[in-house]
Amino acid sequence: MRELTVDLGERSYPIYIGQGILNNIAGLFEKHQLSRKSPMLVITDDEVAPLHLERVMALLREGGFAATACIVPAGEPTKSLAQLEGIVTAALEAGLDRSSAIVALGGGVVGDLAGFAAASFMRGIRFVQIPTTILAHDSSVGGKVAVNHPMAKNIIGAFHQPELVLFDIDTLLTLPSRQVKAGLSEVIKHGLIWDEAFTQWCDDNAEKLLALDPEALSYALYIGCKVKSIVVSQDERENDLRAILNLGHTIGHALEAVAGYGELLHGEAIAIGMVGAAKLAQQFGYDENIHTVTKNLFLKYGLPVSIPAHLDTGSIMNAMMHDKKFKEGTMVYIIPTEIGKVEIRKDVTVAQVRQIVELLKGES
Amino acid sequence: MRELTVDLGERSYPIYIGQGILNNIAGLFEKHQLSRKSPMLVITDDEVAPLHLERVMALLREGGFAATACIVPAGEPTKSLAQLEGIVTAALEAGLDRSSAIVALGGGVVGDLAGFAAASFMRGIRFVQIPTTILAHDSSVGGKVAVNHPMAKNIIGAFHQPELVLFDIDTLLTLPSRQVKAGLSEVIKHGLIWDEAFTQWCDDNAEKLLALDPEALSYALYIGCKVKSIVVSQDERENDLRAILNLGHTIGHALEAVAGYGELLHGEAIAIGMVGAAKLAQQFGYDENIHTVTKNLFLKYGLPVSIPAHLDTGSIMNAMMHDKKFKEGTMVYIIPTEIGKVEIRKDVTVAQVRQIVELLKGES
Repeated sequence: MRELTVDLGERSYPIYIGQGILNNIAGLFEKHQLSRKSPMLVITDDEVAPLHLERVMALLREGGFAATACIVPAGEPTKSLAQLEGIVTAALEAGLDRSSAIVALGGGVVGDLAGFAAASFMRGIRFVQIPTTILAHDSSVGGKVAVNHPMAKNIIGAFHQPELVLFDIDTLLTLPSRQVKAGLSEVIKHGLIWDEAFTQWCDDNAEKLLALDPEALSYALYIGCKVKSIVVSQDERENDLRAILNLGHTIGHALEAVAGYGELLHGEAIAIGMVGAAKLAQQFGYDENIHTVTKNLFLKYGLPVSIPAHLDTGSIMNAMMHDKKFKEGTMVYIIPTEIGKVEIRKDVTVAQVRQIVELLKGES
Repeated sequence: MRELTVDLGERSYPIYIGQGILNNIAGLFEKHQLSRKSPMLVITDDEVAPLHLERVMALLREGGFAATACIVPAGEPTKSLAQLEGIVTAALEAGLDRSSAIVALGGGVVGDLAGFAAASFMRGIRFVQIPTTILAHDSSVGGKVAVNHPMAKNIIGAFHQPELVLFDIDTLLTLPSRQVKAGLSEVIKHGLIWDEAFTQWCDDNAEKLLALDPEALSYALYIGCKVKSIVVSQDERENDLRAILNLGHTIGHALEAVAGYGELLHGEAIAIGMVGAAKLAQQFGYDENIHTVTKNLFLKYGLPVSIPAHLDTGSIMNAMMHDKKFKEGTMVYIIPTEIGKVEIRKDVTVAQVRQIVELLKGES
């Protein structure tokens, strides 16, 4: 089992990564002093529930914890205020009190929704993340939780750090291939923004990762979580540094919005976005090798590197304008300056981005 | 103009109290570096809007601030997730960004709802309180913001401190008499828990306060806010000391719930609750003078001191069991030990409280 700490002073917490570690869930809950007297609520979705819920509930029960389950529909629309209200109903019916915890068992959607429920129920109770997707290695670290509004994604939320994150590699082995690739896109991103050696490692170990080799997967998630935790430790509330985690996300979010959530998975959309950022870097005079390496890496992982031709440039630009990373009219953009390093630029013009979007349509 | 600081480290903020100070709203916003570049959203209700909104909007406009108004229905049902979603819609339409502020112009309902919107929009933007009721001197200090769930009051919320609180006595002069009395009930509470001399002052100045004498009102709100801010400074997230602010609230909340919100105003319900706490103090062996002083004070202010006979004791007790102040099954109760001092007791039994509820029905 690998362990690392997200260093946030009194809000610090550990991430445990390993194969089969879910079997020790009760021991880890005891170690982190989760209450056996107060009921806890386990939130999962209807795709994860058949795979893991029964076992988790049994392990908790055997360990002396009083847990109730709450199953929400799988998929992005579940990140809504209506589902939040449903979870609060379940929490009240289960008798949760201020010493209770909410446990998220699932991917990013479940983590974000359950996390915001934990942040706001009684103005904040304890929270545990048990991510069951590769992508969730990203969302489960850093304390950003939120639901969507019909007009904007992740617009209603909080910063609420978990007590611990428990990442069992076994839960990833049943993931469909497309989700594996898309999840690895965020892993690769953590290399591109912070760690050249790890980027090389990702290049060397693509086959193993795509085949879900447990040891390779465990190492990749460990480094991915580590990079994210270093960044988050230095800037918990996204005042500056944390913005670098958004490499590829400006275009990525816009593509997700315009394509309709589902046509492009998040990891796919940001892969295209990262290729775009590398192209922009070229225009700012940085080594054109950045673009070649980035693009070839994503191609190796079977991820898209170009914008589907049927997506309208005007619509993509419009979607970007609603992105909350526009601060006081200025456009903030994350650009790679070499492999493993990025800078936060505030002088990128809309025209430049539009040009990149056009170029990305012809990328192949 | 009186000024005091709520001391919370980097989240410290000032409270300004005085007659006519709203005229200087733009100057105070400038002093506290609210953004003129980013649009702000002023939230008020349909009772306050006709009285103050036009003037506030004009003053902000003249001061160079880009403000949009959002009017919600007056009354407790407005503290809902549905209204929160509506405010977020208004915020997105008005183009609020991470440097924007949400301004609450109104009583406790508006402050709690707008405050939770500010706490959760983009995971937290700046917030300003402009309370327009006496009662709101209490809710506007301390950063507790929330909406209700159909099954429980204030159950979905956050701790989110404002940038400043601007309390203009002029906005209180149009308050209906019943609301004045109910608001003063929380002012008196702040004396009873912390300040014997101020309790005596409240006894001596009842006539002036009830007649809305500006100087007396300004002083009473100043002391009320000061007591609350001292308590909040020492325990921002209600781990221990802050519980003393709940004097009278265990029975009070239950009465509000059972009577149906509206039959008993919050200030009326907690006045009865405070008389109950004084009776309980007697049973724990404290001076029976506490009960006499408490009761006579509330009678002097025209506030109720007994539970309406038609309210069922069983229902009141049931409502209390759902109160979130029950931690791990233990009953926490605030009891006065002398005038101006209280203790947090954790050994109060349900049977003892039931007896007090019965006794309060016969109080006169």
